[in-house]
Amino acid sequence: MSSIITLTTDFGVSDAYVASIKGAILSINPEVKLVDISHEVESQNVHQASFLMGSVYPYFPKKTIHLVIVDPSVGTKRRGILLHTPSAYFIAPDNGVLSGVINHYVAVEDIEKAENGKMKANLPTELEAVSLTNPRFWRDKVSSTFHGRDIFAPVAAAVSMGFKPVEFGEPLKWLEVLPNPKPEHHANGIISGNIIHIDKFGNLITNIIKEQDLPEGSGRVRIYGREINRISKNYVETGGLLALFNSMGHLEIAACNASAKAMLNARVGDEVILEAVG
Amino acid sequence: MSSIITLTTDFGVSDAYVASIKGAILSINPEVKLVDISHEVESQNVHQASFLMGSVYPYFPKKTIHLVIVDPSVGTKRRGILLHTPSAYFIAPDNGVLSGVINHYVAVEDIEKAENGKMKANLPTELEAVSLTNPRFWRDKVSSTFHGRDIFAPVAAAVSMGFKPVEFGEPLKWLEVLPNPKPEHHANGIISGNIIHIDKFGNLITNIIKEQDLPEGSGRVRIYGREINRISKNYVETGGLLALFNSMGHLEIAACNASAKAMLNARVGDEVILEAVG
Amino acid sequence: MSSIITLTTDFGVSDAYVASIKGAILSINPEVKLVDISHEVESQNVHQASFLMGSVYPYFPKKTIHLVIVDPSVGTKRRGILLHTPSAYFIAPDNGVLSGVINHYVAVEDIEKAENGKMKANLPTELEAVSLTNPRFWRDKVSSTFHGRDIFAPVAAAVSMGFKPVEFGEPLKWLEVLPNPKPEHHANGIISGNIIHIDKFGNLITNIIKEQDLPEGSGRVRIYGREINRISKNYVETGGLLALFNSMGHLEIAACNASAKAMLNARVGDEVILEAVG
Repeated sequence: MSSIITLTTDFGVSDAYVASIKGAILSINPEVKLVDISHEVESQNVHQASFLMGSVYPYFPKKTIHLVIVDPSVGTKRRGILLHTPSAYFIAPDNGVLSGVINHYVAVEDIEKAENGKMKANLPTELEAVSLTNPRFWRDKVSSTFHGRDIFAPVAAAVSMGFKPVEFGEPLKWLEVLPNPKPEHHANGIISGNIIHIDKFGNLITNIIKEQDLPEGSGRVRIYGREINRISKNYVETGGLLALFNSMGHLEIAACNASAKAMLNARVGDEVILEAVG
Repeated sequence: MSSIITLTTDFGVSDAYVASIKGAILSINPEVKLVDISHEVESQNVHQASFLMGSVYPYFPKKTIHLVIVDPSVGTKRRGILLHTPSAYFIAPDNGVLSGVINHYVAVEDIEKAENGKMKANLPTELEAVSLTNPRFWRDKVSSTFHGRDIFAPVAAAVSMGFKPVEFGEPLKWLEVLPNPKPEHHANGIISGNIIHIDKFGNLITNIIKEQDLPEGSGRVRIYGREINRISKNYVETGGLLALFNSMGHLEIAACNASAKAMLNARVGDEVILEAVG
Repeated sequence: MSSIITLTTDFGVSDAYVASIKGAILSINPEVKLVDISHEVESQNVHQASFLMGSVYPYFPKKTIHLVIVDPSVGTKRRGILLHTPSAYFIAPDNGVLSGVINHYVAVEDIEKAENGKMKANLPTELEAVSLTNPRFWRDKVSSTFHGRDIFAPVAAAVSMGFKPVEFGEPLKWLEVLPNPKPEHHANGIISGNIIHIDKFGNLITNIIKEQDLPEGSGRVRIYGREINRISKNYVETGGLLALFNSMGHLEIAACNASAKAMLNARVGDEVILEAVG
């Protein structure tokens, strides 16, 4: 069986960057199966890439190798990392872009402020991480602006050929994670959350999650002063706005055959209120 | 030989949707070869997806599995279907998105109005279709908003592993098709058709087809009050607008090194007149 | 090992063109591995495609087959070509779109004006080129507007199956190349070059190349009347604009966490001055 390497970047597909990475991988292991997740992450938007990777990795086969390259600080001291979880391998800069994965494994009490003011997650034993410091696996000449091609890509190819994490560099006890705003639970069953992503259809995806925030019962939603009186099952509704728990379990504000984003002039970060009913 | 599964959706590639589908397929059959047709179908534009799939499937190897997911009514009673033709397999919602395929096999007299007011095509014996009702092939938990990932993707993977259509659900005798406006033939060799697609170059593709509408002889084209006096062989012409029968056999209005769409402010649905000459 | 065929076009991915090409290839050799370089080349921008292909091919495995289809003159007498270099195969129209590859092998004195007023490169013996004139390898019916699908794609598939260049048509002694403006070296270590590409991040990539134009020492950059006093190592700088030699060796003007393009209202072709220092 050939290994799978997925690619998530903010490079777009008009330039040479993504293709150079694919070439660099295939030059080492031509048998690998490459799968594009997305190259349309907004430039340098580490949050978006983290959300995307956290959303998709559970659907891939075990041992899939995920390359996530949104790397505004390339060439500085930020670490390059390989993270090995029970389900997959992840290769990325250590800048929080793997938060969507790490947060599935790390308890809130194991996240703390690092010396540099950023957040760090202390890793449980089921997660193995190393710093990519062993130049044996890099391309001969490493550009200071394109570690994606010169370090991350060849490391991914080496993982696909069976090299073990310890061979790539020193073990790490913690990784950087992004501040992870969870919705707040108030009195009277009121939950205030935020829009964390707006999709191509203009659907507003929030950080309110059915399992955690409204495991039973129904609810009412308030957004930009407008009220949605019930939680729908699908996108087919009469009368404009609707709310539903989407296929990832997140509360989502949508509009039947229209864009909720355009209708509400909505932006990532804006507040959404869910009031539990019954 | 590994099976080929193609993907045609309106999901774009900025969100998790397409990647989740790819992961769901590869988790079942990691050996499959995935080919993106397009994820840039306009949101919920079933007509565009139907035209696209009808245009490309003849070029793929026999037994290719085509997944077509433009599905505004997901989660309602609309059926999910598997269509098996002499050349390929198609998995899609039963909402007309396979019209571009079905119309190649069904005679006009076998298309009639269904009870719900939509059009339906009664299938000839060479077409085998089933309703995707057997949950054995679905993901364990089926979201009411994402059958692409939870039903269509795993069914496609199962087809690639050799399961037969009858195993997925009950046989169907008819499928929904879109109203299929053909050009009208008038007296004096005048044919009135419509723009059915505008491509990336701004070329205007019509429903007038050389084989059916102008098998021999030459013609003159009228569009937005402008006249094009001959049918060209290629896109290299002096003097602005040109008309040709394109690589799919459709009459197309183009402009040398320019966009006919921009030049004419053209839109899908607008009228084009072809007058046979000689 | 399965062959790799890469695809570079200006077709976009909303239409049937790219998928038809993929289908046409897979119908002949279903085992081939297809890799998209980019389909977002600006419509008919042969220069951009040439720069892109010249930038990425060095990263791919030996014997990779590159299909490059930006072909405004399709259907005229322009030749279709197969170029075989020591590292790869290239299939394209003979319109300069392979200049970025050819210029790596051809000395300046072997480039001259052709009879038609365009530039041509006389090929050294290490480059083998043929004109694609043998219809045995074409699709049965060749459209006059889509050689990508009907000639180039099946030829690429045939190369992947082991057919030799001589089987596809007559040997060629020269190929068309684009005028290749190199930066000018003036007195006092002053070099004037041009922006040749603007990437997705708004970085301005110039034709000034470290190895050739500033192998040692440092420099100062002037662009649109603004001065950048040193060459940086990476994109992390305080204070707006910065200059660096990028991962391909080209001088690049960028802005930390911002778009130099937007900041300077820059366009391809604009002048950039590099002054060597020390």
